Amino acid sequence: MNLYFDNSSTSFPKPEGVSQSINEYFSHGGTYGRAAYNRVIEVSRKVESTRSLLANLIGTSLAPNVVFTSNATHAINLFIRGMRYPKKKVIISPLEHNAVCRPLQYLFQTAGVGVDTFPHHPDGRIDIQKAAKVNFASYDLGIINHVSNVNGVIQPIKEIKRLMGNTPLLVDASQSAGRVEIRADEWKLDALALTGHKGIMGPTGTGALFIRNPDMADPLIFGGTGSNSESYLQPIDLPDRFEAGTPNIVGIYGLWGALSSGMGYSFKREHFVELLHEISTFSSFKLLAADDTDFQSDVFSIKPLGMEVSELARILFEKFSVETRSGLHCAPLAHRTLGTFTTGAVRFSLSKFHTDNDLDYLHSCLKKIDEGRS
Amino acid sequence: MNLYFDNSSTSFPKPEGVSQSINEYFSHGGTYGRAAYNRVIEVSRKVESTRSLLANLIGTSLAPNVVFTSNATHAINLFIRGMRYPKKKVIISPLEHNAVCRPLQYLFQTAGVGVDTFPHHPDGRIDIQKAAKVNFASYDLGIINHVSNVNGVIQPIKEIKRLMGNTPLLVDASQSAGRVEIRADEWKLDALALTGHKGIMGPTGTGALFIRNPDMADPLIFGGTGSNSESYLQPIDLPDRFEAGTPNIVGIYGLWGALSSGMGYSFKREHFVELLHEISTFSSFKLLAADDTDFQSDVFSIKPLGMEVSELARILFEKFSVETRSGLHCAPLAHRTLGTFTTGAVRFSLSKFHTDNDLDYLHSCLKKIDEGRS
Repeated sequence: MNLYFDNSSTSFPKPEGVSQSINEYFSHGGTYGRAAYNRVIEVSRKVESTRSLLANLIGTSLAPNVVFTSNATHAINLFIRGMRYPKKKVIISPLEHNAVCRPLQYLFQTAGVGVDTFPHHPDGRIDIQKAAKVNFASYDLGIINHVSNVNGVIQPIKEIKRLMGNTPLLVDASQSAGRVEIRADEWKLDALALTGHKGIMGPTGTGALFIRNPDMADPLIFGGTGSNSESYLQPIDLPDRFEAGTPNIVGIYGLWGALSSGMGYSFKREHFVELLHEISTFSSFKLLAADDTDFQSDVFSIKPLGMEVSELARILFEKFSVETRSGLHCAPLAHRTLGTFTTGAVRFSLSKFHTDNDLDYLHSCLKKIDEGRS
Repeated sequence: MNLYFDNSSTSFPKPEGVSQSINEYFSHGGTYGRAAYNRVIEVSRKVESTRSLLANLIGTSLAPNVVFTSNATHAINLFIRGMRYPKKKVIISPLEHNAVCRPLQYLFQTAGVGVDTFPHHPDGRIDIQKAAKVNFASYDLGIINHVSNVNGVIQPIKEIKRLMGNTPLLVDASQSAGRVEIRADEWKLDALALTGHKGIMGPTGTGALFIRNPDMADPLIFGGTGSNSESYLQPIDLPDRFEAGTPNIVGIYGLWGALSSGMGYSFKREHFVELLHEISTFSSFKLLAADDTDFQSDVFSIKPLGMEVSELARILFEKFSVETRSGLHCAPLAHRTLGTFTTGAVRFSLSKFHTDNDLDYLHSCLKKIDEGRS
């Protein structure tokens, strides 16, 4: 049985191809870029092949506009800190992570950029009807967490971007990439940040920023690119503009292994929806999930009533070997929106490796705890 | 035989412990930080143990002040971009890499920060006697590439910092960490950037910044740290202040394997010095190395006379299977200083795995090429 339910922190286990691909790298070695020997050419091909797989995953034909970063937080900061804010106003979803809130707080302190929140339903999903009345032209940027890392709500990105028109939208796909569909070109996304080690099930140390128009942002990190080396100016070409220094080749090999695994879900969607329904009937828990299951990804949380969240997490692990994450999940704004600030909740985040049996076991554990308390 | 002489780009091979440690991680999994289950505690211990090994390597007792970054370029940018420049003046060595020159160029363009160069000998080594007359109090910061990635010159960091007094010094240890001695505390260094995948022989995607006084720099990347999660302000404590987002746990495991390998050099220092002497006698090459072998690290370059550098690199690989790196090595300033701009040179960078036999073979190859041309 797989009782690791903390895949929104990092996925475990990984598809076999991840460590296989990394071990292949260690047996061959070499760096990325240009050189007069074959090893480098082989590595560069694998890096570019991984970039293409990522571009494909997020639905863009612009592979060079997918630049590697060390994680999603790095990708988000690259875009947020690189942008210019003449209107001094940004609009964000009510379920943002500190990876967005903290750079915005810094922008507020250093440049006076203010933040508004999209109109939304009680579960944090953006209210499309109300959003249609927002004057998006007054904002420099919109930022939306595609899938909440607290209650798993999937935001209707396509519809929101349609309403926003020319106002740029940055999508934080930390939880959604590899889990739910992303169509960067079709949805006309301006930027999208992702990580390789969560839904995609690759290694840590990998992430990417998709940026449609590279002129929108200055680089965050300047340095050697193996191109235009005679100049002290960062090259303007993609991906070099945003990829200074040696990339995480080892990690990118692992990411290639994950993206090539072609793995699908081992549990049935209906079974998961049924699990959520059952949990919602337990009297000693408050379920944090999407109000409409059509907008539910495979992450959810529960807040125990009359019990510390850390205590519930402890019982789950010590009595039932179930691994979860309790607290604020680095998303105080989301917990404020959902009424669970400052205590937080206990989060359950699934993996493609989970089976219906694993979900049944989780159900039985929560049922036992609920029965013992009611 | 080991004919890979591009270890200043990335080391190959790696000590066995690197992939062993990474594979161990994949079998256990888990993330870093705080959680109610054992997996996370185990990972966090390994990350902190790696941090301590790094602190030990660079000679500081301040382990929390060693913050993980994705590479040396990231570490350098963190410090350079996070600093404040009231005097609008920086002084750098004449052998800096674009990882330093490009962020400084950006600072010049956006904040008018100017750059001077330390007085130096013809090989780029800083002239201590002349440096004693520099008014360091007029500079916000000094930056020195500890070991040149072009000619391998080791800068006399300890003596320079003594002259600089309270003016902060950032040392770029990209090429020196794992190769030459670093005593961050004894030398009173203010900041030091390193990478894990070159001299240390760990995986790509790892690096670190040592920062003595964290208040000297604002973070480069803001986001979740698993600490003070209720706040939109980045925590002020180290290492969290500078480590937002999931760290490269996979890479850090590999780095632990490298730092624990305890590997020494397989070739004799005298043998290497003899090789350099021999090369200096070949009439068709100009050797780029330290004028005084006491200041020579195991990196050097040669400029073929009357032949393109890329042609020499091609012959070395195609006829002799010797892997090198030709061009500017992302260090146009160093090549300007050494008189090899804009053509660059062919670089040979050794590894602890090289044996005296490998060096003899390299000598015989260069001798054959030289004889064929003279």
